[in-house]
Amino acid sequence: MPPVTGRTYLAIPGPSVIPERVLNAMHRVSPNIYQGDIIDITHRALDGLKQLAGTRHHVAIYIANGHGGWEAAITNMFSRGDKALGVGTGLFGVNWARTAQSMGVEIELLDFGRTAADPARIEAALRADTERKIKWVTLTQVDTASSVRNDVAAVRASIDAAGHPALLAVDAIASLGCDELRMDDWGIDLIVGASQKGLMLPPGLALLWLSDKALEAARIADLATPYWSVLPRIGADEYWRLFGGTPPTQHIYGLDEVLKMILVEEGLEDTWARHRVLARAIWTAFDAWGAGGSGIALNVRDPGARGHSVTAATIPGGGAGRLRAWLEQEAGVTLGIGLGMAMSHEPQYADYLRIGHMGHVNAHMVMGVLGTMEAGMCALGIPHGAGAVEAAARALSAA
Amino acid sequence: MPPVTGRTYLAIPGPSVIPERVLNAMHRVSPNIYQGDIIDITHRALDGLKQLAGTRHHVAIYIANGHGGWEAAITNMFSRGDKALGVGTGLFGVNWARTAQSMGVEIELLDFGRTAADPARIEAALRADTERKIKWVTLTQVDTASSVRNDVAAVRASIDAAGHPALLAVDAIASLGCDELRMDDWGIDLIVGASQKGLMLPPGLALLWLSDKALEAARIADLATPYWSVLPRIGADEYWRLFGGTPPTQHIYGLDEVLKMILVEEGLEDTWARHRVLARAIWTAFDAWGAGGSGIALNVRDPGARGHSVTAATIPGGGAGRLRAWLEQEAGVTLGIGLGMAMSHEPQYADYLRIGHMGHVNAHMVMGVLGTMEAGMCALGIPHGAGAVEAAARALSAA
Amino acid sequence: MPPVTGRTYLAIPGPSVIPERVLNAMHRVSPNIYQGDIIDITHRALDGLKQLAGTRHHVAIYIANGHGGWEAAITNMFSRGDKALGVGTGLFGVNWARTAQSMGVEIELLDFGRTAADPARIEAALRADTERKIKWVTLTQVDTASSVRNDVAAVRASIDAAGHPALLAVDAIASLGCDELRMDDWGIDLIVGASQKGLMLPPGLALLWLSDKALEAARIADLATPYWSVLPRIGADEYWRLFGGTPPTQHIYGLDEVLKMILVEEGLEDTWARHRVLARAIWTAFDAWGAGGSGIALNVRDPGARGHSVTAATIPGGGAGRLRAWLEQEAGVTLGIGLGMAMSHEPQYADYLRIGHMGHVNAHMVMGVLGTMEAGMCALGIPHGAGAVEAAARALSAA
Amino acid sequence: MPPVTGRTYLAIPGPSVIPERVLNAMHRVSPNIYQGDIIDITHRALDGLKQLAGTRHHVAIYIANGHGGWEAAITNMFSRGDKALGVGTGLFGVNWARTAQSMGVEIELLDFGRTAADPARIEAALRADTERKIKWVTLTQVDTASSVRNDVAAVRASIDAAGHPALLAVDAIASLGCDELRMDDWGIDLIVGASQKGLMLPPGLALLWLSDKALEAARIADLATPYWSVLPRIGADEYWRLFGGTPPTQHIYGLDEVLKMILVEEGLEDTWARHRVLARAIWTAFDAWGAGGSGIALNVRDPGARGHSVTAATIPGGGAGRLRAWLEQEAGVTLGIGLGMAMSHEPQYADYLRIGHMGHVNAHMVMGVLGTMEAGMCALGIPHGAGAVEAAARALSAA
Repeated sequence: MPPVTGRTYLAIPGPSVIPERVLNAMHRVSPNIYQGDIIDITHRALDGLKQLAGTRHHVAIYIANGHGGWEAAITNMFSRGDKALGVGTGLFGVNWARTAQSMGVEIELLDFGRTAADPARIEAALRADTERKIKWVTLTQVDTASSVRNDVAAVRASIDAAGHPALLAVDAIASLGCDELRMDDWGIDLIVGASQKGLMLPPGLALLWLSDKALEAARIADLATPYWSVLPRIGADEYWRLFGGTPPTQHIYGLDEVLKMILVEEGLEDTWARHRVLARAIWTAFDAWGAGGSGIALNVRDPGARGHSVTAATIPGGGAGRLRAWLEQEAGVTLGIGLGMAMSHEPQYADYLRIGHMGHVNAHMVMGVLGTMEAGMCALGIPHGAGAVEAAARALSAA
Repeated sequence: MPPVTGRTYLAIPGPSVIPERVLNAMHRVSPNIYQGDIIDITHRALDGLKQLAGTRHHVAIYIANGHGGWEAAITNMFSRGDKALGVGTGLFGVNWARTAQSMGVEIELLDFGRTAADPARIEAALRADTERKIKWVTLTQVDTASSVRNDVAAVRASIDAAGHPALLAVDAIASLGCDELRMDDWGIDLIVGASQKGLMLPPGLALLWLSDKALEAARIADLATPYWSVLPRIGADEYWRLFGGTPPTQHIYGLDEVLKMILVEEGLEDTWARHRVLARAIWTAFDAWGAGGSGIALNVRDPGARGHSVTAATIPGGGAGRLRAWLEQEAGVTLGIGLGMAMSHEPQYADYLRIGHMGHVNAHMVMGVLGTMEAGMCALGIPHGAGAVEAAARALSAA
Repeated sequence: MPPVTGRTYLAIPGPSVIPERVLNAMHRVSPNIYQGDIIDITHRALDGLKQLAGTRHHVAIYIANGHGGWEAAITNMFSRGDKALGVGTGLFGVNWARTAQSMGVEIELLDFGRTAADPARIEAALRADTERKIKWVTLTQVDTASSVRNDVAAVRASIDAAGHPALLAVDAIASLGCDELRMDDWGIDLIVGASQKGLMLPPGLALLWLSDKALEAARIADLATPYWSVLPRIGADEYWRLFGGTPPTQHIYGLDEVLKMILVEEGLEDTWARHRVLARAIWTAFDAWGAGGSGIALNVRDPGARGHSVTAATIPGGGAGRLRAWLEQEAGVTLGIGLGMAMSHEPQYADYLRIGHMGHVNAHMVMGVLGTMEAGMCALGIPHGAGAVEAAARALSAA
Repeated sequence: MPPVTGRTYLAIPGPSVIPERVLNAMHRVSPNIYQGDIIDITHRALDGLKQLAGTRHHVAIYIANGHGGWEAAITNMFSRGDKALGVGTGLFGVNWARTAQSMGVEIELLDFGRTAADPARIEAALRADTERKIKWVTLTQVDTASSVRNDVAAVRASIDAAGHPALLAVDAIASLGCDELRMDDWGIDLIVGASQKGLMLPPGLALLWLSDKALEAARIADLATPYWSVLPRIGADEYWRLFGGTPPTQHIYGLDEVLKMILVEEGLEDTWARHRVLARAIWTAFDAWGAGGSGIALNVRDPGARGHSVTAATIPGGGAGRLRAWLEQEAGVTLGIGLGMAMSHEPQYADYLRIGHMGHVNAHMVMGVLGTMEAGMCALGIPHGAGAVEAAARALSAA
């Protein structure tokens, strides 16, 4: 149990910290849903979502979680028997592909383990598809489990280099609002997002962006069902059709507030920059902690392949598990469990952890995590290199 | 636009009024989702949901709206090509059957228009199904569009009388927590519910209850998808599997509070009784307004076939539409539009309205609606019988 | 105990219903109080308060309740041994004068009981003060206990007609934001207000407006103490001095929201008009209930002398007390106790009640009170005239 | 302006961080104030307040800020012309005495500057008062300006050692709920507190505890006024008299929640212990920063004389001011200004700052402050000793 007093910080990779003003915006009775403000607010939010993803094309909001978002994507992308190239760089990339497979899609899986995708191998796989059976390439921008960040534009370039007509679908659930994302510029055809990470909202919304080509593809995708089909939602005349039924009114109030914060007040580029600065401070601390053979290490070696919203790391000898427990009980900080490296009943499960640093996060919150991690390692006798927190402070100060 | 000042009352048949304490319970940052309170609260809420529906069997919570709930039900009930007897007593009953049809289910539709289902005709239809192809009978308990309330136990009896093995699925979205509902006693196999009506929550949750038989049926239903399949959710070991992904943490806090209000503090039987008393006051007023040839009338003639959470009515000559506008602008009351009688571009559309009186509702709120409707009819010169509000007050006083 | 479910309506003459958006505005952590937004918001609120009272002169905010506001006023008005003419038209008018008396002020009390002040008698009293010892005339605009409303401009005129230099101090606690109030136009020198009535805020703020003359008087008033003295607060350079210490930060957020609602969105004249319309509907109902010798009656016979934010009435035979209890238990409505006519241990105490209709109030709320009062009188067998609620509805419809 | 995104931390010595659950508890419409829950809750809160101060005697709640609390104390302690020994160990101790002086009390000021009171000098002063004219000794437990903490029990002992009948009044505004406080055991006769520091509430309440002797003294104190007099409040039969008028209903809801957190959930001894541990971590960091001639230093040299809720320090060369600005703009942290060492227009004003670590504070919050201070000093080129944050982490880990 966390301590009673003192503000706790949920530093897991989603759900993330909800800003006070967003909780306030959602603290409203339900509105008239036939006419009035909620309709204007919804359309403003839809416009904002397009801006967020860097597109002038289409977006739909579903009442669902991220896994529901996967299903919304899959049903609008595929007919039973269609083929896709699934790119895996962590548990979630693999699972999205497997979800499609379980729904009747033939999946060719390119699994890069817990490292970034190699565009050359994607190009090769597409060149090998001489019959052009592959309809879509699926990719996670940042895999929440491994914290690997893929170079989406490079993947697009590899598809083009192969001269292959496959469309590109990106799971941006863990990166949306944190990492640079330019749907139109980068040639992305479909993006899946969700509310509870960089968007700083409670769980409850899945988001789907589509290019014109993706919308065309949706017209023939026979996996579509009335709830998941994006077609009646895009440009719906009747308000309720935007949501295939009752609108998520309170979440929409919150979404509107969040988009105002990101797009109007902080600015999207500055939001991305803030995540980069804070992530680097964390990486710097891990580099110092890992010195001297402590075995503490980040999962992703290449800084250019690290997500800026989540960091997966190892503290050997069960240190990660013990540290997580200490932080929750003594410091008011909850770190994420490791995911994808070991099952919870295996001893090495306790060697992994993840830190969420997405959305409503700043220098105070991150330095507080690093400072209390240092304290916890001292308290628990976990071997670690010296000077980590101050190195992180210097990294921050240089930003 | 409603007036700025004075507490507005959203008297539409969902979303309904959210209690202050429920909004407060939801006004929380997200919790640790790996362990801790949220898990206990969720299991308490699942137990409470069973009690709410009168069952000792199974329940699952989906992040979805009611239309998503329909799809959760359909995908767990059917394989492509299965046959069902769809019972229609209003727009929603018909649409649920049509949704199944669009997903590959063969539907025999028994449409009773805007009157209650006749069990004898259901029995006859099942007797005629000599090959026992009909797997399920689908029924709305209260149709939100027509405000018709069906006698669910009688429908069950008609299935049994026909000696037919069909399972019984009930859409209780508009009646849950308002009208008597006894899943096990009445022999219901599946119930669909949602959060935003009698449950007094924001939109965002769909609910699915299943009998043992329904769970067996779900094991072979090939429409199931990873998100909708109830199988991994029932009795899941890992917390996230209860929700097929990220849990709806804030809604669960609210659900727990709502169930405490209904089951512990007011008591479920008293909750039903309250809805009956308030509905009768409204009906009494309409009887008086309708006297003397005003043409004002309730949609459902038979009081025994009226839902206690929503009331559909006619005020001819466009009176319903004008009254709705007056109430919103002058009195802070939003009534529901008529649904299922006319399209919004047709002139007679303005002859219909609905009043929601579900969930967080009491004598003050209902008498305020009737009193301001009286004022509005006076202001607009809508012909109406005298003494309606006082007749309603007497009806209340007799309760 | 009120029922668990259904929105309750606290229809007492303060504290009043707080708008949802005001509670939200106050639902904030404390801000930097050295610089930043809170300072701008405070100055905007101070400007708004001047507009609310109709003055271009001075205003100060105290952390205190209304009784504290009285003391703030008295200490800035008087030196020990000063003389005042206290005008009583109900319990509060008398008590304000007595409070001053207990602090060393000589009071000449003109007590009009529970009827409006007669300006001619005030003029006569001032003419009789040939030595001009009377420094101030104190008056309640609307006495919360009797619901009497005094004609403030006429009282001012009576002072002028007497050629007397006395300043005029008005307790507007129960009328502020409800009844027309024009400080400068009406020649008022000091007004006391509070947050929890027409201002729709939680209790916690007392407000003091002063004319230039009153500010001059404050400079020599020797009852002043460091906390109550208005002098360091008016035009303070340092932010904390505006409040004689720590500022009431959350109340200021709420006050800013309330002033936006009244002054910007609804408009002050429309706010007054709304209170007039709603009060007349209530009076109309009482007229009908009182017909036929039921003994039900308003305290103030002359409609021109009735406050528009509170109504004091009699229901004989203990009917008021029984009705109050029924409304709280059965209908979710809390009416106010009678004040000033009997002590709580006396039997006739139960013959009196008051209805608060101040601030965040609209037609739905008022008609709900009248409709449930009708139901309660029926349930309890309280004799009452017929047609009251419909008469009130017609009164509303004519507005 | 602070950054838009990321949770800000107001680390000033009051108002302090309000827990989310306390804001929620206060997010309620106003209740029936004649009967019902609010009355029970109030009496539970009054009992809790006694437990908080370690007394079985008397307590009263005022709607006021801390300066109002001073006045409540003074008016109940003194008659005009009475004499007191005022002990000053910082700006607030001196100002409380001066406030009494301005209200007609003769003050003998023992000013210890920004160091702790020397009981021997107090004893000597009382021995010198051979006519026993001194009625009260006034003392701050922790002076918010200097962060000096006085040994209250030792001061009591010095009074006793002098054989002097003077009563002992303690201003615990900055220490209440943070530093050990035992009214009865330590022989304190009167304590002043307020809501917005260790009590984690919004500003708005002043608190006054009295021993039996102090209550006797209040019966003859002629400075008392109707609002400030504690006599009608203690043991009042009528609810409103507890507050001298309208009760601070929303603050009472919050107070009840806060007392549950401190007294029931964390435990008062553990609350004090938490403040000690966190304060020591901060002191440890300052010791390291101050090494090597940087000039960075705590105001109070003697750790035994430091308050555990606020820390006053120097960063020379204007470093304190520049660091405060950097932290607010770059890190989401607001530190307090220095108070009592220089006026805001003087250059050395920027050499001082204070850190609030009172109430809702934990290791994450404190380490976040230290880590971002480190970053800020790096960014601004402020000379400082090395290893401060890690030394603080080790101090924490040893606790």
